[in-house]
Amino acid sequence: MEFRILDKIDSPSDLKSLTIRQLETLCEEIREYMIECCATNPGHLGASLGSVELAVALHYVLNTPEDKIVWDVGHQAYAHKIITGRRELFRLNRKKDGLSGFPKMSESPYDSFGAGHASTSVSAALGLATAAKLEGKDTKVVAVLGDGAFSGGLAYEGMNNAGAAGTDLLVILNDNQIAIDENVGAMHNYLLKMSTSKTYNSMKNKVWGFLGNGWLRRKIQKVVASTKNYFFKHSTVFSGLGFRYFGIIDGNNISDLVNTLNRIKGLKGPKLLHIRTVKGKGYKPAEENQSVWHAPGKFDIETGERVRPEKAPLKYQNIFGRTVVKLAEKDERIVGITPAMLSGGQLSDMMKAFPERTFDVGIAEEHAVTFSAGLAANGLLPFCNIYSSFLQRGFDQIIHDVALQNLKVIFTIDRAGLVGEDGATHQGAFDLAYLRFIPNLTEMAPIDEIEMQDMIWSATQDDYTGPITIRYPRGNCQGLELPEDFHKIEKGKAVKLRQGTEVAVLSIGTIGNQVTKAIEMLGDDAAKVSHYNMRFLRPLDADAVMEAASSHKAIVTVEDGCLAGGLYGAVCETLAAKGINCRIKGLGIPDKFIEQGTVTQQLKECGLDAESVCKAIQFFF
Amino acid sequence: MEFRILDKIDSPSDLKSLTIRQLETLCEEIREYMIECCATNPGHLGASLGSVELAVALHYVLNTPEDKIVWDVGHQAYAHKIITGRRELFRLNRKKDGLSGFPKMSESPYDSFGAGHASTSVSAALGLATAAKLEGKDTKVVAVLGDGAFSGGLAYEGMNNAGAAGTDLLVILNDNQIAIDENVGAMHNYLLKMSTSKTYNSMKNKVWGFLGNGWLRRKIQKVVASTKNYFFKHSTVFSGLGFRYFGIIDGNNISDLVNTLNRIKGLKGPKLLHIRTVKGKGYKPAEENQSVWHAPGKFDIETGERVRPEKAPLKYQNIFGRTVVKLAEKDERIVGITPAMLSGGQLSDMMKAFPERTFDVGIAEEHAVTFSAGLAANGLLPFCNIYSSFLQRGFDQIIHDVALQNLKVIFTIDRAGLVGEDGATHQGAFDLAYLRFIPNLTEMAPIDEIEMQDMIWSATQDDYTGPITIRYPRGNCQGLELPEDFHKIEKGKAVKLRQGTEVAVLSIGTIGNQVTKAIEMLGDDAAKVSHYNMRFLRPLDADAVMEAASSHKAIVTVEDGCLAGGLYGAVCETLAAKGINCRIKGLGIPDKFIEQGTVTQQLKECGLDAESVCKAIQFFF
Repeated sequence: MEFRILDKIDSPSDLKSLTIRQLETLCEEIREYMIECCATNPGHLGASLGSVELAVALHYVLNTPEDKIVWDVGHQAYAHKIITGRRELFRLNRKKDGLSGFPKMSESPYDSFGAGHASTSVSAALGLATAAKLEGKDTKVVAVLGDGAFSGGLAYEGMNNAGAAGTDLLVILNDNQIAIDENVGAMHNYLLKMSTSKTYNSMKNKVWGFLGNGWLRRKIQKVVASTKNYFFKHSTVFSGLGFRYFGIIDGNNISDLVNTLNRIKGLKGPKLLHIRTVKGKGYKPAEENQSVWHAPGKFDIETGERVRPEKAPLKYQNIFGRTVVKLAEKDERIVGITPAMLSGGQLSDMMKAFPERTFDVGIAEEHAVTFSAGLAANGLLPFCNIYSSFLQRGFDQIIHDVALQNLKVIFTIDRAGLVGEDGATHQGAFDLAYLRFIPNLTEMAPIDEIEMQDMIWSATQDDYTGPITIRYPRGNCQGLELPEDFHKIEKGKAVKLRQGTEVAVLSIGTIGNQVTKAIEMLGDDAAKVSHYNMRFLRPLDADAVMEAASSHKAIVTVEDGCLAGGLYGAVCETLAAKGINCRIKGLGIPDKFIEQGTVTQQLKECGLDAESVCKAIQFFF
Repeated sequence: MEFRILDKIDSPSDLKSLTIRQLETLCEEIREYMIECCATNPGHLGASLGSVELAVALHYVLNTPEDKIVWDVGHQAYAHKIITGRRELFRLNRKKDGLSGFPKMSESPYDSFGAGHASTSVSAALGLATAAKLEGKDTKVVAVLGDGAFSGGLAYEGMNNAGAAGTDLLVILNDNQIAIDENVGAMHNYLLKMSTSKTYNSMKNKVWGFLGNGWLRRKIQKVVASTKNYFFKHSTVFSGLGFRYFGIIDGNNISDLVNTLNRIKGLKGPKLLHIRTVKGKGYKPAEENQSVWHAPGKFDIETGERVRPEKAPLKYQNIFGRTVVKLAEKDERIVGITPAMLSGGQLSDMMKAFPERTFDVGIAEEHAVTFSAGLAANGLLPFCNIYSSFLQRGFDQIIHDVALQNLKVIFTIDRAGLVGEDGATHQGAFDLAYLRFIPNLTEMAPIDEIEMQDMIWSATQDDYTGPITIRYPRGNCQGLELPEDFHKIEKGKAVKLRQGTEVAVLSIGTIGNQVTKAIEMLGDDAAKVSHYNMRFLRPLDADAVMEAASSHKAIVTVEDGCLAGGLYGAVCETLAAKGINCRIKGLGIPDKFIEQGTVTQQLKECGLDAESVCKAIQFFF
C-alpha cells in the first residue's frame, strides 16, 4: 500500500512543514497502515488507534528527541513508533529481532523511557525533567498515561511528588474510559463525572432557585459562569495534587490538540492536560467492541472478522476459570480478585457466575494482594489471580501482609515462564525465585491441566495453610481429557514420571512436557533417564532429590524461570545440606532479559526446548 | 505509679460506663503511663501521644473486637494496645517475648490486621469490610492512617477501589502534618490548604467584590455560606475518590471525637473523617521537636533531656551521609533520593549540603525507584537510599525500570540484616536473595566502614555500570580510623582475610565481624580457618569459591540474610556448576520471621552470633 504523506515521514522533523489539513490526512494514513499491519501481525491495536492524533501532535509541537515523551505502558505508542523512523520495521512489531511492542530506550532515541508495566510514566518523566532542570536545559517533558494506568499507586506517587516539586512537566491524561476490560475504580467514575460536571450544575441550580428569573439572575449568571470555570479548574483532584488543570479537549481532533499543546507547552510548573479519545478510533469493529479489540489477534480488514482457530483448544486460563467457579459453587468462602486482568486471566468466568464475590480492583497489584489479605483475615478464601511479572508489584505485600500473618491466600500466577510476543517486560521469569525464600508460603506448579485443577482444589483443603502459589503459563493446555473429579495433591511430594538408570531429570511446571519430548528423542537411551515432576518448589521434596542423586550418575534440573535461586538453586542447596555429591546441570532462563519472539523461539534461546534438554541429558551418558 | 481509671481498664468493655469527663482523665493517664514506659524503654512515642483520644474514642464508640480497627504502620497504636488488655505488657514494648511495636494479629484479637510498613490500612480494611458484607454481618470497619502514609500509592489504590465499591468503611485521616521527618508532597500541601480553605475564600471574594456591600450581599452571603459548605464537602480530593467527607475536627478533643464517631458510624458507604492531632501531644518537648521525638530513645521525663552516649560512635548511616556529600562535591551528576527516611538514612547530610540535588519523595518507594531511573536516563547519577525491607516495595521497579534498561542507579540499602526492636516487619532479611537473580545488577556489601566508603566511591566509577546495590546494617560501625582517600574495590573480587588449612568461611557484609570473633574464639585452632570476605554476591567471585573448595575440607557460608537463595545458594550453585565436591554448611536467617528483640538476641536466635559461627566451624575439624 502506498501513502501520500506517511511514506515521506522518516522522522518527526518531516512533520514540521505540514499543514493541519495534511496532518489530518497523515493520521488517516497512519491508521490505515496500522490496521493493515496488525491484521496479519497481531498487536495492541485499540489504544494505539485512539492515540494517533496525540502522537502526531506531540511530535509536531515538541522538539523531539531533545524534548521527551514518556508513554505509559506503551500500548498507545504505535503511531509514535511509526513516525519516528520505524515505519517499515513496524511490520515486524513484537517479532524476534523486530520491534518491541512497547517503547524501548535501546530501540530509538525517541523512546525517552521504556515501558510495559503500567503507571510508571509520571515518575520517570519527573526524573527526566528534574535532571534537565539541574543541568539547566530547557527540555520539555511530557508523560502520557491512560485513565486505566491512573488507578496504579505508582502514578499517584509520581503525581504527589511532581505536584509539590513544581518542576516543569506536562502530564497528558489520555482518557478513553477503558483499560483492557471495562475500567473500574473511583477515579474512573470521577473522570466520567467531570465530563458531565454534575456537581457544578447542582450548585448552579441551588443559587438560581433562590434568585428567581430576572435581571439579577442574568447578571449573577455571568459572574458564576466565570467562577464556575474557576472552580472547575481549581477543585479537580489534579489541582488538589498541585497540577494546573487543562481540559477536557477532544484528543482525536488534531487541530485542537496542536493549538492547546502550543498554548501550554511553555507554561511553568506541573500541568495536566485531560483529553478524551476513542479507543479503536477510525475502525468501526474496534470502536464497537473495545475490550476485544484491545489486542484482537489476526483479523479480516474488510469484514472485521477475527481469525480464530476452528475449535480453540483449552488454555490454562480456562482451566483456572472453570475450576474456580466449580469450587466456588460448593465453598462460599471462595472469592476472586484480579488487578485489571479479568478476561486475560479468565476470572471473567467467576465474575459471570458470582459477580458479588469477584473483584476487579483495577491496575493496582499492591492493593490486590493486601485486599486479599484483608478478605482472608476475616474468614474468606481469596483466589488472587495475577500475572507473574505483575506480581512483582505485590512482592512486599505478599511478605508483609500475607505471609507474615500466615493468611491463606491462593495466588494463581498466570503468564509464568516465557510469554512470547510481549517480551522482556512481561516475562514470568522471576516468580519461582522470588517466592522461594518467603516463610510460610507453599509454591507449586502443575505439569498439565489435570494436575492444575487438582492443585487448585487441593490448595483449598485444610492441610494447605498460609499463602499458596500456583504458577502456569500463558496459552494452550496439553489437550488431555479432563476428569470431573479432583484428586488430592500431597503437599511437598514430587512424582516420578519414569524410572531410568543414569540421569535423573527434575522439572517443575509445564516445562516438564519439553522434558518428556526430550526423553522421547533419545530413542533407546530413554531407558537411561528418570523424570521427576517436582510439583513443589517449596516445600521441596528433599527425599525425591536425595533418591535422584543417590541412584543416578547425574541430575538435570529444568525450569522456565531464572536459573539463579529457583529449582536449580533449591536442589543445589538441598544436596549441599545433605552432604550428597552428585553431578548436576541446571537448565533455566539465563541471566539476561529475554526479548520478544515466539515462545518457541524463546525456549530455544534459553536452551529449554526439547532438543536442548535432550542434549543436556546426553552430556551425562 | 498508680492510675485511678487506667488501672481498671482491662479491656474496651471497661470503657463503656465512663463519662466524657472520665475519658478525658483516662487519656491523661494513658499519656503519663506511655511517657513513663518510653522514658526507660525506647519506643515510637510521638505519634502515639497524638492518638490517645482517637484510640479511646474508637473503642468507646465501637464494639471491638467484633468491629475492626486497622491501624496504619502502627506507630500510633500504643494507647490502643494499652486499653486492650496489654497495659502491663506494654512495659516490654519492642522487647523479646514482649509486645511487638506494631499491631499484630497473633498478639491480640483487637489487632484486626498487622502493620509495620505504611499505607496498607485502607486495602486491608476494605478486605475485612467486604468479607463482613458477604457474610451478612453488621461489622463496622475503621482504617486509621496518618497523612504521611497517605503519600503511599497503596493507600491511593485502596481508596480508589473502596470509593467505587461503595462498601461501608470509615477511613480516619489522622492528620498531624508530619511523618517522621517534615512531611512532603502535594497531598500534604493540599491538607494544609484545606485547613485554611483558601480556594473558598478567594471564590467568595470574587463574588463579593461584584456585589458591593448592601442587603443583597448579606442575602447572597447566606446562600453562599451553605453552598460553600456544600462545595467544600463535595469537591475534596476524597469526594473525588468516592468518599463522603467529614471534618476537619480536633482529634485531641475526646468529646468531639465521640460525638462525631457516634453520628457517622452508622452511615452507609465509604466515609472519610479528617481529624487534626498534635504529634507529641501533652508532652512539651515532644510537641516542640516532633521529628526528634518520633522515636526519641531514652529520656529524662522531668527535663525532657534525651539520654545519649557521651561520644556517639559513628553509625553506618553516617558513613553513607558523609561519603555521598564528599562525592557530590566533586561530581555534579550525583543526586540523592529518599522515600521519607531523610534523617533515618542520613541523606539529611546531603540535603543540608545540596538541597537542590536531594529529594525526599515521601513514603513512596515505588516512585523513589522509578524517579531515580528517570534521573539516570537523563544523565544523572542517583543514589537511592532506602531500607532493605522497604525496598521490597520497589522490587518490580528495580527490575522493570532500572535493570531492564541497564540504568546506573546506586541503591544504598540501609537496615539490611537483623534490625532489632522493630522486629519481623522491618527485618532486612530478603534483599540478598531478591536482588541476586536480577540481570545487569551488581550486588555488594562491605564488612566495615572503610570498605563501605570505598564501595560507595567505587560504584560511581565508570567500570561499574547498571544498577548497583550496597547493603549495610543499622547501627554502629566497627570504630576504625577512616582514611581520607578512597581505594578501588575491584568488581566481583573477594578478599581473603586470613589463610587456614581446614575450613574456609565465606561471609558477606558486616556479619563477617562475627566470623572474625568466632575465629578468635578458636584459640590455636584458628590456624585451621581461612576467612574470605566475599564483598560481592553478584557477580560472585567464582574463583575464590573454587579456591576455597579445593584447598579446604569444608566451607561455611555466613550471611545475615535468608539462607535460601542468598550467599549460601549462590555458593552451592557455583560449586554444582563447576562440578566441585565440597562439604558445606550455610549459616543465615532461617526460614521464619524473626520477631522483635535486640540484634544480639536475634543473631543468637539465627545462629549467627560469634559463638554459633564458632561451633559451625568446629563441626568440620
